[in-house]
Amino acid sequence: MSVLIKNGRIITASADTLADIFIEGETIKTIGKNLHVAADEVIDAEGMLVFPGGIDPHVHLEMPFMGTFSSDTYETGTRAALYGGTTTVIDFILQTQGRSLKDALTEWQSRATGNAVGDYSFHMAVTDFNEDTKKEIKQMVEEEGITSFKTFMAYKGALMVDDRQMVGLMQEVKKQGGMVTAHATNGDMIDYLVAKHKSEGKLSPLYHYLSQPEVTEAEASGRFAHMAAYTGCPAYIVHLTCEGALNAVRDAGKHNYQVFAETCIQYLLLDASLYEQDFEGAKWVMSPPLRELKDQRALWAGINQGLLQVVATDHCPFMWEQKKMGEKDFSKIPNGHPAIENRIELLYSEGVAKGKISLNKFVEVSSTNAAKIFGMFPRKGTIAVGSDADILIFDPNAKHTLSAKHHHMNVDYSAYEGWELTGKVKTVLLRGKVVIDNNHCLVEKGNGTFIKRNKVSNII
Amino acid sequence: MSVLIKNGRIITASADTLADIFIEGETIKTIGKNLHVAADEVIDAEGMLVFPGGIDPHVHLEMPFMGTFSSDTYETGTRAALYGGTTTVIDFILQTQGRSLKDALTEWQSRATGNAVGDYSFHMAVTDFNEDTKKEIKQMVEEEGITSFKTFMAYKGALMVDDRQMVGLMQEVKKQGGMVTAHATNGDMIDYLVAKHKSEGKLSPLYHYLSQPEVTEAEASGRFAHMAAYTGCPAYIVHLTCEGALNAVRDAGKHNYQVFAETCIQYLLLDASLYEQDFEGAKWVMSPPLRELKDQRALWAGINQGLLQVVATDHCPFMWEQKKMGEKDFSKIPNGHPAIENRIELLYSEGVAKGKISLNKFVEVSSTNAAKIFGMFPRKGTIAVGSDADILIFDPNAKHTLSAKHHHMNVDYSAYEGWELTGKVKTVLLRGKVVIDNNHCLVEKGNGTFIKRNKVSNII
Amino acid sequence: MSVLIKNGRIITASADTLADIFIEGETIKTIGKNLHVAADEVIDAEGMLVFPGGIDPHVHLEMPFMGTFSSDTYETGTRAALYGGTTTVIDFILQTQGRSLKDALTEWQSRATGNAVGDYSFHMAVTDFNEDTKKEIKQMVEEEGITSFKTFMAYKGALMVDDRQMVGLMQEVKKQGGMVTAHATNGDMIDYLVAKHKSEGKLSPLYHYLSQPEVTEAEASGRFAHMAAYTGCPAYIVHLTCEGALNAVRDAGKHNYQVFAETCIQYLLLDASLYEQDFEGAKWVMSPPLRELKDQRALWAGINQGLLQVVATDHCPFMWEQKKMGEKDFSKIPNGHPAIENRIELLYSEGVAKGKISLNKFVEVSSTNAAKIFGMFPRKGTIAVGSDADILIFDPNAKHTLSAKHHHMNVDYSAYEGWELTGKVKTVLLRGKVVIDNNHCLVEKGNGTFIKRNKVSNII
Amino acid sequence: MSVLIKNGRIITASADTLADIFIEGETIKTIGKNLHVAADEVIDAEGMLVFPGGIDPHVHLEMPFMGTFSSDTYETGTRAALYGGTTTVIDFILQTQGRSLKDALTEWQSRATGNAVGDYSFHMAVTDFNEDTKKEIKQMVEEEGITSFKTFMAYKGALMVDDRQMVGLMQEVKKQGGMVTAHATNGDMIDYLVAKHKSEGKLSPLYHYLSQPEVTEAEASGRFAHMAAYTGCPAYIVHLTCEGALNAVRDAGKHNYQVFAETCIQYLLLDASLYEQDFEGAKWVMSPPLRELKDQRALWAGINQGLLQVVATDHCPFMWEQKKMGEKDFSKIPNGHPAIENRIELLYSEGVAKGKISLNKFVEVSSTNAAKIFGMFPRKGTIAVGSDADILIFDPNAKHTLSAKHHHMNVDYSAYEGWELTGKVKTVLLRGKVVIDNNHCLVEKGNGTFIKRNKVSNII
Repeated sequence: MSVLIKNGRIITASADTLADIFIEGETIKTIGKNLHVAADEVIDAEGMLVFPGGIDPHVHLEMPFMGTFSSDTYETGTRAALYGGTTTVIDFILQTQGRSLKDALTEWQSRATGNAVGDYSFHMAVTDFNEDTKKEIKQMVEEEGITSFKTFMAYKGALMVDDRQMVGLMQEVKKQGGMVTAHATNGDMIDYLVAKHKSEGKLSPLYHYLSQPEVTEAEASGRFAHMAAYTGCPAYIVHLTCEGALNAVRDAGKHNYQVFAETCIQYLLLDASLYEQDFEGAKWVMSPPLRELKDQRALWAGINQGLLQVVATDHCPFMWEQKKMGEKDFSKIPNGHPAIENRIELLYSEGVAKGKISLNKFVEVSSTNAAKIFGMFPRKGTIAVGSDADILIFDPNAKHTLSAKHHHMNVDYSAYEGWELTGKVKTVLLRGKVVIDNNHCLVEKGNGTFIKRNKVSNII
Repeated sequence: MSVLIKNGRIITASADTLADIFIEGETIKTIGKNLHVAADEVIDAEGMLVFPGGIDPHVHLEMPFMGTFSSDTYETGTRAALYGGTTTVIDFILQTQGRSLKDALTEWQSRATGNAVGDYSFHMAVTDFNEDTKKEIKQMVEEEGITSFKTFMAYKGALMVDDRQMVGLMQEVKKQGGMVTAHATNGDMIDYLVAKHKSEGKLSPLYHYLSQPEVTEAEASGRFAHMAAYTGCPAYIVHLTCEGALNAVRDAGKHNYQVFAETCIQYLLLDASLYEQDFEGAKWVMSPPLRELKDQRALWAGINQGLLQVVATDHCPFMWEQKKMGEKDFSKIPNGHPAIENRIELLYSEGVAKGKISLNKFVEVSSTNAAKIFGMFPRKGTIAVGSDADILIFDPNAKHTLSAKHHHMNVDYSAYEGWELTGKVKTVLLRGKVVIDNNHCLVEKGNGTFIKRNKVSNII
Repeated sequence: MSVLIKNGRIITASADTLADIFIEGETIKTIGKNLHVAADEVIDAEGMLVFPGGIDPHVHLEMPFMGTFSSDTYETGTRAALYGGTTTVIDFILQTQGRSLKDALTEWQSRATGNAVGDYSFHMAVTDFNEDTKKEIKQMVEEEGITSFKTFMAYKGALMVDDRQMVGLMQEVKKQGGMVTAHATNGDMIDYLVAKHKSEGKLSPLYHYLSQPEVTEAEASGRFAHMAAYTGCPAYIVHLTCEGALNAVRDAGKHNYQVFAETCIQYLLLDASLYEQDFEGAKWVMSPPLRELKDQRALWAGINQGLLQVVATDHCPFMWEQKKMGEKDFSKIPNGHPAIENRIELLYSEGVAKGKISLNKFVEVSSTNAAKIFGMFPRKGTIAVGSDADILIFDPNAKHTLSAKHHHMNVDYSAYEGWELTGKVKTVLLRGKVVIDNNHCLVEKGNGTFIKRNKVSNII
Repeated sequence: MSVLIKNGRIITASADTLADIFIEGETIKTIGKNLHVAADEVIDAEGMLVFPGGIDPHVHLEMPFMGTFSSDTYETGTRAALYGGTTTVIDFILQTQGRSLKDALTEWQSRATGNAVGDYSFHMAVTDFNEDTKKEIKQMVEEEGITSFKTFMAYKGALMVDDRQMVGLMQEVKKQGGMVTAHATNGDMIDYLVAKHKSEGKLSPLYHYLSQPEVTEAEASGRFAHMAAYTGCPAYIVHLTCEGALNAVRDAGKHNYQVFAETCIQYLLLDASLYEQDFEGAKWVMSPPLRELKDQRALWAGINQGLLQVVATDHCPFMWEQKKMGEKDFSKIPNGHPAIENRIELLYSEGVAKGKISLNKFVEVSSTNAAKIFGMFPRKGTIAVGSDADILIFDPNAKHTLSAKHHHMNVDYSAYEGWELTGKVKTVLLRGKVVIDNNHCLVEKGNGTFIKRNKVSNII
């Protein structure tokens, strides 16, 4: 099977070129001017931008959480990702406290294997670090190709590790060539504020926001960076949302240490004023919550300054009925919002088209950096000879409107209902195969494969 | 004329691929696996790294300075650059105070035109900003392709602009789509310290160092960043050497502003202990001077954190006889040191081979970022279809020793005499032509062309 | 002559006591409970607060400036100060560039001697530091008792010293046991912005404000602190107005260096919205200009954190007719505003009565710290046996309204017209003599004496 | 009973005066020149410095800890304090987790009441904050005069509160008018490092130091400051030892919040090189441990910058036999060192006599600020009419040598053995009674009284 993409404007993090791409099997064989080559399929990309397929390293599919499951399965979630130009996602396995990492892996595999439409990999969330799980780190890295270990600094009693576990985990992960990532927030402070608000009868979604003030994230980001600097373990902060946390990352830099950081598309575009309505605000109940306009400005600047390497989604959708579990108590609203399908188009329209970031930077933060940081580069994350032919053909001029009416995520509302965007996904290839074309998905579940990832070295 | 480079490991800022490169005329036509194509010349790059040709955006060739001229002409300097894997340099035109920018351009062109062996461009150093020169900014940007404007915050009465001129220049340059760069140091403080040391009979090279303490650079870097943030003008600090200045750049980031910054290879590798000898230290008399080990650590970290985008040289060589002009008075030693030929090999050997930076980062800071920042991308700075075929074929395993005995710069000492390096330039192509092969230069003066540069936009 | 003050609540920076004060001649002889002592005059201070007389270390009396003179003479200015509870002021001598410090001293003495009603001292503003003036520093310190040397980082061509002079001055002043103070602002940037606004026909008082953005002060405060840290010279920033400058002082502290700083009462209480009116805004045209509410919050916090040691006035009044010199051009409005009479009452009412600062802190910043920093302690600045009997008896409960109708400054408007205050000056003693009582001044010009000041050592 | 102190040089935080002090009963009645008054006792203080009695707000007497008791009882400890010029100490009550604050108070009272020789008060360490203890806060403040609440961020399972409890406590304490203090260190990280070192057989005192790196304190100080800023609760960090923690306090200031901080005399004078010996290093095993010379420099600067308000001791002595409990395992060495008797003389000799701090600053940090911060001012902490006559008459010229041979603390070694000091305690009065004279203690146990303290308001 071969494909020839003609005359597109190919954009990578470090190229901007009018050329043809010839794909043979799953990988790119040739990039060149006016390639004269026979192909099973020829795509005319004249006037189109040709990007590496997007990578979203922060999604939660069919995740058991708060007594329910996030509403996208591996099938619906990765399919929606493809519709949105994202060809690879990294999902989170959650260890159950008291049980092994392997058990959790097995459970997650049981849901994912054979169901994914797009490619996927796993982070392992270590929620109980002890002498037994310590031994599993090496196995995960070397046998399973799982090289990143997520920690929660919140959700005490369920997911949270304390700082003793954190430092121990960091020392082991560093030794095994992996990376520790963190949901960096002061869970104890949040628990206090949640309880306080509830005891005062303050139960609307607004109090979800007010229970997680900026300080909880700024403090924990600094703490995590301090521990990373002390242990020397490669470290990454997920879903960084605010100026205070970004400054914590900056200040870590003063100690000659780098902490990688990811923000999510919603923190760049939405703000906390959405909570100032009745239960409708539940649509955006996620953790951390949306922040202020000042934070949006800081995050865009952080991207251009190279402090934020990745724009992900933390995609974790729940049906409106599920959200209503918290109608009388914000703390029972399942946390998360749907964005896996919208990330690329939103980032292009609001970032590139409005002049906030360059085309090369767009590719860096939507694809390349995630591949580098998480050990999938150069197989994923770029358009290069020998790399997987994960390619997004994008119409920069097409206008369209986001809506739950026609999105493909398994959720009955859109967090961006009615947003008018410039720029639209036209065709998507995954490992050499056209998977999306003009808003049709051409493949079935099972098309996606698990991506084993490499150890972390000089990564970016 | 066509060239086929076979089987190299091609490294760009965002690719790492085993492939062939087919060049037709001056540009890259095709990159692919096992290209079956007829070529006038075939190069076997098996086992070699294939990088984009280096870009050194900070050199001073045949520059009139301190009553003499830097000892490399456009011919010898750009030829030495090619020997060292650098295919494009950006030199500095110095306006004479009281005269026009155009006059200075004409003078520099008279020395450069027809003499360069490698490609070159010009920064315009504005030393006298007034109503007349203000009008010339637009002309430089739009007609001459000179889009970056250098300022000196030192050398009062000769090159220095005061802050009033600086802000005025920034507002005009921003309007015209250019960038302001700065030698950011507090010239007044330095003038005081030089005079003080001289009045006390402290005349050895060590006092050159002691007359430019870290604070002079930290202060001025902060000041320049403040002015850039206020005006919103794209800004770039040349030859940043120390922790204090790097922190000034970091703190500017807290105000949501980005200042680009360059360090030079010598500040990463050498330190001020070299001044603790007799007149021999004059070899490293440059401004800013070499710093401390703590600063080296900060600079390497700054590269990995993305705060320092470029590693240049500030190449400004003087013969030992010229250096001796200051034998009795450090302030008469011509400032500068030779490195144009050594930058790439030093950075690979000390940076990549010793595990301090990744291969992709090496390409970023030695080539890609300079091209992006200074408006030459994607023509220069990467290996991509359609881009100039400026290519460095590099043997990562070859061991060799630096020495003035066999270098090609027109200077009779080496700043790195006897350094044993891992990794060596093997073959260099400039716009499709092999210019260096196995330590022979195959082209003559006149081979290099002037590169007009584009306006600055979302640049990196 | 003796005075007995009965039953007041005596507040110093480190006392809070109900006691009697017995004064003999010019100094305090005894402080005690129920003193049984014969006195020429007995004052009942029951229910009153008894403070050390205020010290205002930043005033400009009869100052030649912008083609006119500030409208308070030594007589009217120091008398108004007494009415407001300030018993000692420090005025600024301005050296004329090209002439000696001694010349300037002589000129200032000709205006002051025999005319002051309250006590006064001089700072020497060095506007031209050279080999001749360098020699005068020692003379000023040792013979004239002038131990503080003011510099202007603005007003190029008239008052400004460049950084070379600044560092030279600092090294000499340090050697002689003095202190360097600075009007820390980037004069060059301001000159640029003034010229720009004028060229654009933007001539109203608002553009005075917009020509001196926060960055001009933040930058220069950092620069001054850097130079002070480098030289090790005791240093003090006058009229610090904004968060950015305060952070520059904080960051200097990270280098283990202390820069003293003063704010003025207006920056704590007024903000830049006053410029958003027609020419009326000229009443508050001063340099630096008023700032934002965020800056007020930062300044109050800075006082409590000990970073701002002094609250002064920069009193520099001009009649409305004088202000009108700039009716068509903000740059011709004489800079300055009247506050010498209002400082203490405003600071008490807005600071103490509203709970922002403690009584002890009030005394520190209105009197004690200025005495310590400027070499007048323990003679001035406290209520202690042996100290000058400069005493303010203050009614904490009296309400009154500020107005030009009944103030004693020689200026025909009030910057605080109609402000209703809590707390009022009742009786003031200067060196043992009652000078103000129930709003009457009991002494004539010539009553004030010049205060020679001591060298600076471990000062606070 | 009355006492007249003649001709001393009286130093307070804001006075420096040659005068007599007349004391009647427990308080100061009169301060004056040449007081002619009959007194039961006359003390000639000619040539002496007369300071307010020292206040040490951080001592541990007869404290149950690590299976033993600190070796000074209330009798021996407060007596030694008096010998060293400290007239008031504040000890720490430790709540037992699971029991009430009142229980702990009762236990501590049983040891203290009737035994103290000098005056004392209590901080309450809240180790278990819950709905029950929450109710006791008000009672402690209003009935018991205990207004400061200590927290431990270390010693999990015994003393540590988590951040949820911390924030809850802060909100309650703020409401009741108290202050929260913290042993700010990351106990979890320390627990990890202790366990790690032990598992590696690293058991000497050096590993006590290496288990508590600077980052553990810097991180927790920042976290505590963040929580204080969020809640608005008055906050105080005990025994701050290092640059990193001091910077955390500074950075809190940028958010317009003040966190008070105390260092201890040992951190100013001793450094971690003392651990580089065999078990002898156990003498200085305390938490936090001694730090580096850079930290000493930062702390002295922090005192002069007003960021560190108090120099205390954390006096917690153990006999050498007790220290030997950890001969085979550093984690079993009782933490603490003896200094209650040496603080004043060390601070004078190393601080004042060597020119690091002024006399007024010496009084501030050894006495006045502790009184203000902890609600004992103006009764304690100054020399003023109406205040307690707690007075230290100090010979600034006397030379002497510290040694366990003749100190009065109940411990058989000195942490400062052989140190030669300038300046010596000569006579000490407590509430009007001479308690120490020429190295003799004139009073018995029971002489000291418990000092109830006031609520916190605008405190310094």
